[in-house]
Amino acid sequence: MPSEAFDRGLLTPVAVGHDALVSDASVLDALVRAECALVAAYAELGVAPQEARAEIDHVFGLDEKGGAPSATLDVDALLSASVAGGNPVIPLVGMLKDQVPAAHRPWIHRGATSQDILDTALMIVARRAVEQVRASLGNTAEWLRQLAGRHADDVAVARTLTQHAVPTTVGARAATWVQAIARAASRLDALTFPAQLGGAGGTLASFVEITGSVDAAAALPAAYARATGLDAPDAPWHVTRWPVTELGDALVQALDALGKFSADVATLSRTEIGEVSEGVGGGSSAMPQKQNPAEAVLIRSAALRAPQLGATLHLAASLAVDERPDGAWHAEWPTLRDLLRLALGASWHASSLAAHLRVDAVAAARNAGITGGRVVSERLRGVLVPLIGAARFAELLNGSDGLAARLRALPEAAGLDVDALLDPRAYVGLAPRLARGGAAGAREGGDAGTAGDRRDRPGSGNNACGVGA
Amino acid sequence: MPSEAFDRGLLTPVAVGHDALVSDASVLDALVRAECALVAAYAELGVAPQEARAEIDHVFGLDEKGGAPSATLDVDALLSASVAGGNPVIPLVGMLKDQVPAAHRPWIHRGATSQDILDTALMIVARRAVEQVRASLGNTAEWLRQLAGRHADDVAVARTLTQHAVPTTVGARAATWVQAIARAASRLDALTFPAQLGGAGGTLASFVEITGSVDAAAALPAAYARATGLDAPDAPWHVTRWPVTELGDALVQALDALGKFSADVATLSRTEIGEVSEGVGGGSSAMPQKQNPAEAVLIRSAALRAPQLGATLHLAASLAVDERPDGAWHAEWPTLRDLLRLALGASWHASSLAAHLRVDAVAAARNAGITGGRVVSERLRGVLVPLIGAARFAELLNGSDGLAARLRALPEAAGLDVDALLDPRAYVGLAPRLARGGAAGAREGGDAGTAGDRRDRPGSGNNACGVGA
Amino acid sequence: MPSEAFDRGLLTPVAVGHDALVSDASVLDALVRAECALVAAYAELGVAPQEARAEIDHVFGLDEKGGAPSATLDVDALLSASVAGGNPVIPLVGMLKDQVPAAHRPWIHRGATSQDILDTALMIVARRAVEQVRASLGNTAEWLRQLAGRHADDVAVARTLTQHAVPTTVGARAATWVQAIARAASRLDALTFPAQLGGAGGTLASFVEITGSVDAAAALPAAYARATGLDAPDAPWHVTRWPVTELGDALVQALDALGKFSADVATLSRTEIGEVSEGVGGGSSAMPQKQNPAEAVLIRSAALRAPQLGATLHLAASLAVDERPDGAWHAEWPTLRDLLRLALGASWHASSLAAHLRVDAVAAARNAGITGGRVVSERLRGVLVPLIGAARFAELLNGSDGLAARLRALPEAAGLDVDALLDPRAYVGLAPRLARGGAAGAREGGDAGTAGDRRDRPGSGNNACGVGA
Amino acid sequence: MPSEAFDRGLLTPVAVGHDALVSDASVLDALVRAECALVAAYAELGVAPQEARAEIDHVFGLDEKGGAPSATLDVDALLSASVAGGNPVIPLVGMLKDQVPAAHRPWIHRGATSQDILDTALMIVARRAVEQVRASLGNTAEWLRQLAGRHADDVAVARTLTQHAVPTTVGARAATWVQAIARAASRLDALTFPAQLGGAGGTLASFVEITGSVDAAAALPAAYARATGLDAPDAPWHVTRWPVTELGDALVQALDALGKFSADVATLSRTEIGEVSEGVGGGSSAMPQKQNPAEAVLIRSAALRAPQLGATLHLAASLAVDERPDGAWHAEWPTLRDLLRLALGASWHASSLAAHLRVDAVAAARNAGITGGRVVSERLRGVLVPLIGAARFAELLNGSDGLAARLRALPEAAGLDVDALLDPRAYVGLAPRLARGGAAGAREGGDAGTAGDRRDRPGSGNNACGVGA
Repeated sequence: MPSEAFDRGLLTPVAVGHDALVSDASVLDALVRAECALVAAYAELGVAPQEARAEIDHVFGLDEKGGAPSATLDVDALLSASVAGGNPVIPLVGMLKDQVPAAHRPWIHRGATSQDILDTALMIVARRAVEQVRASLGNTAEWLRQLAGRHADDVAVARTLTQHAVPTTVGARAATWVQAIARAASRLDALTFPAQLGGAGGTLASFVEITGSVDAAAALPAAYARATGLDAPDAPWHVTRWPVTELGDALVQALDALGKFSADVATLSRTEIGEVSEGVGGGSSAMPQKQNPAEAVLIRSAALRAPQLGATLHLAASLAVDERPDGAWHAEWPTLRDLLRLALGASWHASSLAAHLRVDAVAAARNAGITGGRVVSERLRGVLVPLIGAARFAELLNGSDGLAARLRALPEAAGLDVDALLDPRAYVGLAPRLARGGAAGAREGGDAGTAGDRRDRPGSGNNACGVGA
Repeated sequence: MPSEAFDRGLLTPVAVGHDALVSDASVLDALVRAECALVAAYAELGVAPQEARAEIDHVFGLDEKGGAPSATLDVDALLSASVAGGNPVIPLVGMLKDQVPAAHRPWIHRGATSQDILDTALMIVARRAVEQVRASLGNTAEWLRQLAGRHADDVAVARTLTQHAVPTTVGARAATWVQAIARAASRLDALTFPAQLGGAGGTLASFVEITGSVDAAAALPAAYARATGLDAPDAPWHVTRWPVTELGDALVQALDALGKFSADVATLSRTEIGEVSEGVGGGSSAMPQKQNPAEAVLIRSAALRAPQLGATLHLAASLAVDERPDGAWHAEWPTLRDLLRLALGASWHASSLAAHLRVDAVAAARNAGITGGRVVSERLRGVLVPLIGAARFAELLNGSDGLAARLRALPEAAGLDVDALLDPRAYVGLAPRLARGGAAGAREGGDAGTAGDRRDRPGSGNNACGVGA
Repeated sequence: MPSEAFDRGLLTPVAVGHDALVSDASVLDALVRAECALVAAYAELGVAPQEARAEIDHVFGLDEKGGAPSATLDVDALLSASVAGGNPVIPLVGMLKDQVPAAHRPWIHRGATSQDILDTALMIVARRAVEQVRASLGNTAEWLRQLAGRHADDVAVARTLTQHAVPTTVGARAATWVQAIARAASRLDALTFPAQLGGAGGTLASFVEITGSVDAAAALPAAYARATGLDAPDAPWHVTRWPVTELGDALVQALDALGKFSADVATLSRTEIGEVSEGVGGGSSAMPQKQNPAEAVLIRSAALRAPQLGATLHLAASLAVDERPDGAWHAEWPTLRDLLRLALGASWHASSLAAHLRVDAVAAARNAGITGGRVVSERLRGVLVPLIGAARFAELLNGSDGLAARLRALPEAAGLDVDALLDPRAYVGLAPRLARGGAAGAREGGDAGTAGDRRDRPGSGNNACGVGA
Repeated sequence: MPSEAFDRGLLTPVAVGHDALVSDASVLDALVRAECALVAAYAELGVAPQEARAEIDHVFGLDEKGGAPSATLDVDALLSASVAGGNPVIPLVGMLKDQVPAAHRPWIHRGATSQDILDTALMIVARRAVEQVRASLGNTAEWLRQLAGRHADDVAVARTLTQHAVPTTVGARAATWVQAIARAASRLDALTFPAQLGGAGGTLASFVEITGSVDAAAALPAAYARATGLDAPDAPWHVTRWPVTELGDALVQALDALGKFSADVATLSRTEIGEVSEGVGGGSSAMPQKQNPAEAVLIRSAALRAPQLGATLHLAASLAVDERPDGAWHAEWPTLRDLLRLALGASWHASSLAAHLRVDAVAAARNAGITGGRVVSERLRGVLVPLIGAARFAELLNGSDGLAARLRALPEAAGLDVDALLDPRAYVGLAPRLARGGAAGAREGGDAGTAGDRRDRPGSGNNACGVGA
């Protein structure tokens, strides 16, 4: 292993093979793109010559498809030099200038501050990563929606506080996974990825000098955003860090949704429960009876880390004192990148897990029956207490043997269809409807309540959260 | 102090006097309201007699303005009894039934599970608390917007990594506070507060039994939501906890914004800086020279706690296994309440702080001058390096004496207006425009980027985030 | 519910009935004790008259057993007045002086700063609470040690990644609970609870003035510590907050240990597993088949919150800028108190849970058998692969039927005692020894590794972590 | 940049050049060492032939100084293969076996589970990293102890809640840094780094089979620990994760101490305060007036992340269900490694910062005087209120001009030595003594309070926390 590779994923298997979009190399590419975009913005406004833009883009391969703008940089030197100023942009600027023809050199980084470039680069990286996370969530939701539909009527037991409570269906449980994932996807869709351009103090004063007018300087951030493919900022956000925290919150929400899904898969995979198994991986050569829920475990390893990473982003936002804080900004970078990495890996594995998940509906039904019919005790209470009173009802349910014989022996229950009464399939309520994406009355009533993400809701007519969304 | 009052605020002064909406008493009231709303929903659908609704509402004073529905409960007994089941709703139901005429008693809690009532009650409490937080944020933003306008042109120094960087204006700094607070307000505005109604396993099976039809049961949650004043849920969210985490995230974001504001106030209040002071409080009798930024300190005490509380909510969401998890749900309740409490207290103090903040524009200008003109070195570089070269420029800036004399002694600078060149007020860029709420080009370019909250943006024509919003 | 009781435990059932030691009333008592202790320290050094000490102690009932020093205070007024200075000590001093004869009044709070009093009071409260937590942990460990001994040889299945792995014993699992709890107890035992006495800037300058000598002032903190029952500080710790973070870490570690115990209890209580059940509580009247692991759920609700509270204490320590920070100190108070409260409640319930836990050893053995002998596949591999090769071995283990018949049908296995080979009880390794507290060789080797807590180790000869420790 | 290098430090400049001990390559080396150590342990007990040990060590270069045991591995293949099982050890075992002569191959990983190897490897890595962190803390403390001594009497102002409070000395402030760092160092010294060896379910059953006796199996972990250089475990700690959380807590405590130090350096570096400056780095070419506290900023970037990483470790411990949990264990690995990395980087920079920190004692004294003598108002109150009453005293202190003239004009103050009274150097209390490491009475009283780490205390006779400790 080359000594310079501090982290290749040895301790983060959930992300191996899925995190290239947020690697140091990708960030470094984005830093170069962010620098080049500034020249492009000047050129668009007619401040810099078009030729400067074209030649600089050419130097860094941005005029070719698949260009690797940072390929020619001496990364070791860059990293070593980044320590003194606490920031990789400072040495990067010098390195880029060295590669650019002298005539155009002054346009590199002109008027910018390192935060402009670093914040913009991280947004470039984040936007691409979020697109990929979003696609994986869409795939996951679509696979699970199909699964929910297939098993909409297959009875299972709802467990609360670890105990069998009442019947539900396999599909209704899967629908809860879809709901949370679709909601998280809608949060990612609603994100803003603004470019950053404020100059040393967030005033754009240098840009007024350079462009020669307040209005031209005021137009520069939008031009810069266009050149980067990012959203135009309303104002510099150097110390108003909601673009970072909202991104972080949405990523954590996505990991929460995947965490719930994977927690259920892990639980339902328990040897004693055996209602689901993963379609791939998880075997153990030493213990062949094991079918480890390996993807669920990987996803959970990410979901358990995410909330605390999100908290760090909020802390950094809260501590963004002055016009650039003395450490809080720096704490954001690796934390945001870790969250993106975990979301990339976990969402990929979630879509794989969803695509290959094997449901054992027979086992689910069998489990629903192991309390001898007591899983419908809530229903029995309504029927029997009027007939035999609460005390005798409680006595009736004692023990763990089958209730059918007891009920048949009950004179007061003579007229009851005992089999029907004890059938858990007859007490699943709206579970099949929920499994098929129908809502619990809200939509019918036309009173939706949730705002802004209607199109992505599971069960709405279209399929916006589906594959490829 | 009565022994039963575990926490009256002794260790949380930021919230004293501002947290009644989320006290145990308010939660208990909301629990009773949630129970009564279920009867009302049955009555609306024609399942329960209107009389049951009316009499039950009367018993708990809900037919009067200002009724205190939990006033007659034996709270000590309730609390003691809540431990065995891990949940206050279980004993509450019995207590409520005891107070209701026998004929209507069966309608209490009918078909519901304790999570239905507790989740709904917390949303009732949260919605009211968020309204108050929102109003305080609106007030804060409006006061700060006025402050930003008044001081739009008053020069100050932008500090980065604790050091004087370039000039800005007092108003531009205040505008960053407004931006973050207005954004947080827009997040609160976008929240959904859904009622919860799913029955023991989230299937509404009990409601199908009780109402006699799947469609009637499906209509019940929306009716329930109407009776509670909450949003209708798309589906039960017993284990899809985004309503809680999105609420938590928005509250943390609000506290981040207030944290940044208060961090700046604390810093600018430093004895050596003295650019702002709090208008009220903060005096020290023992050390009369002190003008403690007491409200800023209180706000910061809340902002530093909030991110970790938000993380706990996410963890609970991620761990929402089964159809009701074995601890994660219970960890949510006090955590969410703490966040609401901190947001109530901190936002109130922020509005007070904003209303009374005293700005010493003279001190701000004086501070901007203490580097002898070096605060405009970025500008000087552009002008002087072409004249004298980089090496002599660096030498020129050495030391800490005033640059004016040095510049005047420079033959190459003979034609320059030294006073104008060194005047920090002439190098503030877009600061005045930003201070007055004008954007850095984005709006002019028509390419906004941020979605969904346009009406609340600072600087937009209307005033939606203003007082009383 | 009196309006002033913000929190009586409605949302924190885990602590109801167990948190009186850390209530606002207890903290207020401790604040008064801390003030009185300063007078006592002056008196001990001969600086204040003994009479001042005696009369002041008398005024606040400290000369009686069971005195309630804050009983006469107007708490509402105190709380309201605490907001302006951000600190309850400031108004408290005035209130105390009002109750003291004029002649002795000057000795109240003399030379002290509010941080001296508040830090000291929190340590007084913490020390008592930790003693109670420690006793509960000792009880828990002792009950579990007995349980481990009783079930040392009862076979159970070890589950890894949710899957049956290899056999273990019920007692060996319980021994892991004991180990973690005993270790956490040893951390609590090692804590220091120093008094705080530094004056306004941590220099004790005021005390030099008052006592008239540097040496007398230097002796005051130790005298103060004696009067409070706390440890003498090496130096003021106003901004070196390790006494708080080490306390927080130890409490979190205790909650981790209880969290692991309760997570196992919840899992083993699953309807499909049924190896343990709680002896008390947890019933559900609506669903009598449920035996909710209610105490485990309560404990988990605490354990999931604790790590983030601990993180806040560390952050506050890290941000302890200047000689008293502008918010970080204030964020500590309620956070530390919450941790103490959770530890008090969770440890009490853990001791109850441990005392009443019902183990179903038959169910554990039955579960160990449900893979038809595959739970000893690791062992079979060693025996059979040499006989039949890896490929046939893998084939042999396929499916889920009993392996005994397959093995008996295997010519190569003719000489094997199949029953013995498949008996999970014969493949439990050191589990019985571990269950009885014997170590895995470490102790025998005399190379212990863990420092400082030998006496509390489970399995060591004495019983220091036992009941009443 | 090679595509495989996900993280080389681009976003973590604090660690660049200081984290090699915890890189993926180092972890991989440690994994191989852990596997080889198992063979060595078998050989030590006479179970495996000495030849197996010797040859296997030779294959992986462990018989040479500076051997790189993982050098011959195909890391890409290993990483890809680690995903399916969620764990890099599974494919590693196969790769190692491929390199070992067939005769000795069965001894590789014999009886072990992947957790045995991974936990042990992380402890190997952690122990070495902690030694380096410890050395850096020792250096830092020693440099700061010298600085505190040099400036023991140099007056400065103590600031509380951002405001000038009372005088202190530069050295007394530095002594608080030393105290926190030395305490953290003592925590690192007290850590245990146990090897892990429990087999698939923590029972060592496989080792009983292999060694042929319970006693031999029981002796194996200690032998294994000797071969790894780690501490012998009392018992397998597969699900009792205090070795990880205690390590995490100690690392966070170290980062807290460095965070406090760096927060003070950053504040004291403020342009308006200017009492300290960093000796190296931090310059800005664009803004030469800036002397960024770059090392302080880097350290703070680490300190702000650490508490939340520590929280994740505790959560994982709390969720360590079963005999190996389904995700919690996996969440530990990268989190613990991140903490080690941050501690390595931050402690190195702290020692550099401490070694080169420039103190401007003249600026400190000047700042102490800017309130015109009001910094000694606490002292004046004691002297003047008896002479002129509280009302006139308050009036006297109004304003911000010098108090000397006002005092001289006061008839009642005629006999006072005004210069002496207003001299802040005469009101520094024990600050010089504290700066020189003398305690505030505790040591003299012989009642120390803090346990277990006496030898490392700053100010104690020896120098255990010094350079090279």
